Amino acid sequence: MNPNSELGPALRALTVRAEQALSRSLPPAEQSPAELHRAMRYAVLGGGKRLRPLLVYASAHALGEDGPQLDAAACAVELIHAYSLVHDDLPAMDDDALRRGRPTCHVVFGEAMAILAGDALQALAFELLADDPTRRIDANTGMAMLRALGRACGAEGMAGGQALDLAAVGRPLTLIELEHMHACKTGALIRASVQLGALMAGADAGTLDALDRYAHAVGLAFQVRDDILDVEGESAVIGKTAGKDAAADKPTFPSIIGLDASRARLAELTESALAAIATLGDPASLLAELARYTACRVH
Amino acid sequence: MNPNSELGPALRALTVRAEQALSRSLPPAEQSPAELHRAMRYAVLGGGKRLRPLLVYASAHALGEDGPQLDAAACAVELIHAYSLVHDDLPAMDDDALRRGRPTCHVVFGEAMAILAGDALQALAFELLADDPTRRIDANTGMAMLRALGRACGAEGMAGGQALDLAAVGRPLTLIELEHMHACKTGALIRASVQLGALMAGADAGTLDALDRYAHAVGLAFQVRDDILDVEGESAVIGKTAGKDAAADKPTFPSIIGLDASRARLAELTESALAAIATLGDPASLLAELARYTACRVH
Repeated sequence: MNPNSELGPALRALTVRAEQALSRSLPPAEQSPAELHRAMRYAVLGGGKRLRPLLVYASAHALGEDGPQLDAAACAVELIHAYSLVHDDLPAMDDDALRRGRPTCHVVFGEAMAILAGDALQALAFELLADDPTRRIDANTGMAMLRALGRACGAEGMAGGQALDLAAVGRPLTLIELEHMHACKTGALIRASVQLGALMAGADAGTLDALDRYAHAVGLAFQVRDDILDVEGESAVIGKTAGKDAAADKPTFPSIIGLDASRARLAELTESALAAIATLGDPASLLAELARYTACRVH
Repeated sequence: MNPNSELGPALRALTVRAEQALSRSLPPAEQSPAELHRAMRYAVLGGGKRLRPLLVYASAHALGEDGPQLDAAACAVELIHAYSLVHDDLPAMDDDALRRGRPTCHVVFGEAMAILAGDALQALAFELLADDPTRRIDANTGMAMLRALGRACGAEGMAGGQALDLAAVGRPLTLIELEHMHACKTGALIRASVQLGALMAGADAGTLDALDRYAHAVGLAFQVRDDILDVEGESAVIGKTAGKDAAADKPTFPSIIGLDASRARLAELTESALAAIATLGDPASLLAELARYTACRVH
């Protein structure tokens, strides 16, 4: 097995930190409205790679920041990601019954509760970002973070990418259109994750720019890998229905440029990501590890 | 006709101001992703009373503030309200085909696009609040406003109230349970609207508290009036399907305490609202007018 297909000890420890922060940030399952709280916890705490929280931590680490104020932003980006999965899986959207190896939220809690759980998770993400209990983030930085997250989630970001994705089903896309769709649908939130970490670490404009080039490349690489796994992987390993994209007649990198060219594009994007952070040196090692992991992951 | 059932010239002018600000704040219909943008604009710009933006303006006015910085918050609360209506109307939720006298968003744009439009509207609301182009709101106030909006939208606010509402269908509720459900479902956002206006006007803690008592009463009064209209009103006037609550076996004020007691409760709440702002005197006249309008409106 490729050693980059698993996370090393530092990132595994940060995954545990993210899990614990997420559990604390979600409302208790026994508290009213209990069914909604349970659906929210189910949607978020069901495993997942925690790539976005890891990017928040790793980006801040690259600039020497590791304080407890990182946790709220790490949670916020994962809550947004989790809500987007809940809504994407709905019958009216991708109609998927399996996610992270478990029944999807609407299968367990019903469609209405799944819609509400997604809505409440989005609100909670913004609330967390607006409320820094550590008092270590100055208000101007906090506002910049909220602007970044808002842009990443909206019609010019994640929701817009999902709309482009819907419009693309059954229609041939060019590679440029496909990359634009993914840059919105998954790329925007990945870039926001890196940006939030960098903002909390007081990054200057040049560093923000370098990190954004890194994040753009990693975001796209993530999706190329996803498409390759959909062709190569098995449902039991990738935790969702394999071959789903092809069955749904969704445009993918392999379907447009072929599997070999997709692998080459993945390698090229990973090199771009690593090149963007080269000047940050050793403190950026976790970011480098995440770029390699993104390209090699098996689920 | 009761003179309080229509808005006076000052509030009508503020309604126009809100309409224009909303249209400016929404992405252009012709810009990609165009279908999503059209669905968002359809959901927001289809009329509506604009009660929440009016509360933002009126609350700030009561404290002497009328600057252009109020517009973003006025839009934010209305975008949240509009998104909640789009999601509430979905087949999996209330399954309503008529809203503000027009086909609902999912009837026109399909369920998937309606879900996304709602999601994008929520994100846009937070983005607007995080981005003050007038540079008149200091960052600490901005963060307090974002916290207030986040709380009002989430599992302890609007989304939580909707979950309680779902759980209540076909089950007898006490008056206390019904009022709690509405305090979350519609009350939280109405209180946030008043709070945002007050925060932008630099309200002190005592004034914030008085305005919150006003907002709590107005929010509940709004819902009591809604329930009365559902019994008394005609679809053509109220702009949605009349008798819908009873048909869906939803608990309402008239169904629990009867129509006469509901009218008495409405009068009592309106008096409470007016009493809460009495010390603010003449500058609070728009708030007073909104309280009377809430109790007398015919749609």
